[in-house]
Amino acid sequence: MSLFECKLVRTVDDSYDIEIGRDLSDKLVSEISEGKFGRIRKFAVITDTNVMPLYAQNIVDKLRDNGFYAELFCFEAGEKSKTRDVKACIEDSMLGCGFRRDCMIVAVGGGVVSDLAGFVAGTFGRGVPFVIYSTTLLSAADASIGGKTAVDTPLATNLIGLFNQPKKVYIDINTWRTLTKRDVSCGMAETVKHALIADEEFFCYLEENIEKAMELDEKTCEHIAHTNCRIKYEVVMKDERESSLREILNLGHTVGRAVETVSNYKLLHGEAVSIGLVAAAKLSQSLGFVTNEQVKRLEKLLIRANLPTVIPEYIDKKELVKKLYTDKKVKDGKLRFVLQKGIGDVFYSDEDGAGYARPTTEKEIEEIIERM
Amino acid sequence: MSLFECKLVRTVDDSYDIEIGRDLSDKLVSEISEGKFGRIRKFAVITDTNVMPLYAQNIVDKLRDNGFYAELFCFEAGEKSKTRDVKACIEDSMLGCGFRRDCMIVAVGGGVVSDLAGFVAGTFGRGVPFVIYSTTLLSAADASIGGKTAVDTPLATNLIGLFNQPKKVYIDINTWRTLTKRDVSCGMAETVKHALIADEEFFCYLEENIEKAMELDEKTCEHIAHTNCRIKYEVVMKDERESSLREILNLGHTVGRAVETVSNYKLLHGEAVSIGLVAAAKLSQSLGFVTNEQVKRLEKLLIRANLPTVIPEYIDKKELVKKLYTDKKVKDGKLRFVLQKGIGDVFYSDEDGAGYARPTTEKEIEEIIERM
Repeated sequence: MSLFECKLVRTVDDSYDIEIGRDLSDKLVSEISEGKFGRIRKFAVITDTNVMPLYAQNIVDKLRDNGFYAELFCFEAGEKSKTRDVKACIEDSMLGCGFRRDCMIVAVGGGVVSDLAGFVAGTFGRGVPFVIYSTTLLSAADASIGGKTAVDTPLATNLIGLFNQPKKVYIDINTWRTLTKRDVSCGMAETVKHALIADEEFFCYLEENIEKAMELDEKTCEHIAHTNCRIKYEVVMKDERESSLREILNLGHTVGRAVETVSNYKLLHGEAVSIGLVAAAKLSQSLGFVTNEQVKRLEKLLIRANLPTVIPEYIDKKELVKKLYTDKKVKDGKLRFVLQKGIGDVFYSDEDGAGYARPTTEKEIEEIIERM
Repeated sequence: MSLFECKLVRTVDDSYDIEIGRDLSDKLVSEISEGKFGRIRKFAVITDTNVMPLYAQNIVDKLRDNGFYAELFCFEAGEKSKTRDVKACIEDSMLGCGFRRDCMIVAVGGGVVSDLAGFVAGTFGRGVPFVIYSTTLLSAADASIGGKTAVDTPLATNLIGLFNQPKKVYIDINTWRTLTKRDVSCGMAETVKHALIADEEFFCYLEENIEKAMELDEKTCEHIAHTNCRIKYEVVMKDERESSLREILNLGHTVGRAVETVSNYKLLHGEAVSIGLVAAAKLSQSLGFVTNEQVKRLEKLLIRANLPTVIPEYIDKKELVKKLYTDKKVKDGKLRFVLQKGIGDVFYSDEDGAGYARPTTEKEIEEIIERM
C-alpha cells in the first residue's frame, strides 16, 4: 500500500471590471482589438431573439469590421430557454462553425443570456473566456456579480451550472430604453431587494427617486447600477469568509421562484421576486422582525415601480406551497427563509445552524400565502 | 460613466491523496464515516453496468450499513455513454431522488465513469465534492491525476467538460483481476506512453517486467500505479508554469483518438493509443528524432502487452486522415503532433510557437498512416 500526494495549491485571480455607461459597443470592440482579453481572433456572440436585432448583430458586425471571425448564436428569448438542450444546441453550432478552445464568448443580453452563455463558456473546451454585455436593468442588478451560471431542469431551477467569472461586464444604460416597462419594473424588484438587505439609505433614495428611475433618468440609473453592483459585491466578497452570507441575496426568492414556476412563467422573474419580497416581509413581520409600517413602505414602493404585491388569482396556492420544497435552501426536508430585520438589514441566528436562513414551518408560510 | 472593480483574488487548495492498495472499499467508507470529506450524509454512487455488480453495489451497501443515504446511478458501460444525454439522465435521477447541494459523488469504475461522474459533480448544484474509486489500470494511469472531466459530442471528443479535482482517489489494484486481458493491455498503453515521454528507466523496467505486469503481479502493479501517478503529476504540475507542457500527455493521441472514432469504438481507447504511439514514433523517426531501433523496441513492448501496432484493415485511411483535424491541438487549421525525442523525452521547439506540439503537414502523417 502506498500514498501519493497531489499538491495543488494556487492563487487564482478572477478580478474584473464592470463598466457602467452609454453605448459601450465601440468600447467593447476596441478593448478586444487592443488585446485586453488576450490574442483571441474568434468570437461567439450569444444572444436571444429579442436582443439580436437590437444590439447583438451590431456587435457581430463591428467585430467583423475589425477583422475578427465572429458568429451569432441566437436562442428564443425567455427563461424557458435556460435548458441543457439549448446549451447543447449552442455548443454543437459552435463546434460546427469550427470554434475550439481559442475562442471567446460574448454574452449580449439579460440574465438568461448571461446565465446560459456563462455556463457554455465554462464547459466549452473545458473553459473559454467570456464577457457580458448587459442590456437589462435586471441583469445589471443581479447577473453581473457573483459568477453564478446555470440552466433549469424539469425538477429544479438553477441547479445545474457552475461558478464562472466573466473577464469584464459592460452595463450599457442606453439599452434600457428598449426594455418594456415590465422589464424595467423587474429590474427594480432586485434593486429594492438589495436596498432591503443592506442599505436603508438606498431604500430612501429609491423612495425619493422611483419615478425618475422608471423614466430612466440617466444620473438616477447610473447611481442605481453602481449601488446594485456595490451591494452585491460586498455580499459575495464577504461570503468568501462567511459561507452562508450569500444566502441573504435569496430574500424574496423562496416564494418568488416558486410562484414564477407555478405561474408557468406568466410572471416574469422580477415580478415573482416582488411578490416574494412581500411574502418574506410579512413573514418577518409575523415573527416580530419588521413593523407593519415597514411592510407598508415596501408594498408602496413596489407598487410605484408597477410591481405586483399580491399573488395572482390564477395561482394554485396548494401547489405553490408544495413547490417551495424544491428551493435550494431546503435542508433535511425543512423550509428555510431569509428574513428582513427592519429595512437594510437581515435576520441572523446561530441557533439550529440557521445562519441567514431561518427554518420555517409550512404552517407559518402557508398562513402568509393564504392572506396574500 | 463609471467603473466598478470586482477584486476576486484567492488561494485555492485542490490538493488530494491517491491511495494505492488492495480492497480499499472499507477504507473509503471508514474515511467517509470519520468525516474526512466533511459532514455529508448523502452519496450518489455513479458507475457503469460492468462495475455495478462487481464493486459499486458493494460500496452502496457498505454506505447504507453505516447509516448513510446512498443511491446507485448506473449507465451502460463504454465510451459511447460519455454524452450530455447520459449526464442529464444521471442529474435528473439524482434530483428525482432528492439529491441537492449537500451530497457527495462517488465515482466507481474506470476512466469513462470518472470523466462523466467528475463532470456531473462539477455542475450539480454548481459543484459538489467527489471521490474516485478507480477499478482499471487505464484510469489509474490516466484519469486519477489532472482533473480533466468531459463528455463527447457528435462533432468532438472531450470538448465539453471542465477541470474538477476529486477529494481523493482510491486505486484498488485487486479490482484489476476482474478486468479482461484487453483492458489490462489498454492500461499498459498509457503506461508505456508515460515511460516514453518522461522516464527511460521506467521503459526499461517495463521491458523487463511486462509479462509479470500482465499477470498482475502485486509488487509490479503497485510500482506501475505509483510511477504512472508520479509522471503524470510532474507533467500536470509543471504545466502551472509552462502552459503547453501538458500537451506531451497527448503523445499517440492524435492518431489514437481519430482511429478510435473511425473504428466506431471497436478499438478500445488504449488499443487506439497503442496504434497512435507507433504512428507518432514513426513520424518522429522520419524527422530524425528517434532511431529505427527505438521504434522497434516500442513495437516489441506493445506487442508483448497484446496491443495492436498496425492500423486494422477495416479502417478507412482517408477518413482517418480527415478525422485528425478534429484534434484539439489543431491550430489555425494545422495539424500538430507531440513527438518523441529518443525514449523518455519529447520534442520541443520555440519556432512557430510550436512548443511541444510540432506543426505537421497532412502529407507527412499521411505517409506514415499509409505504411501502417
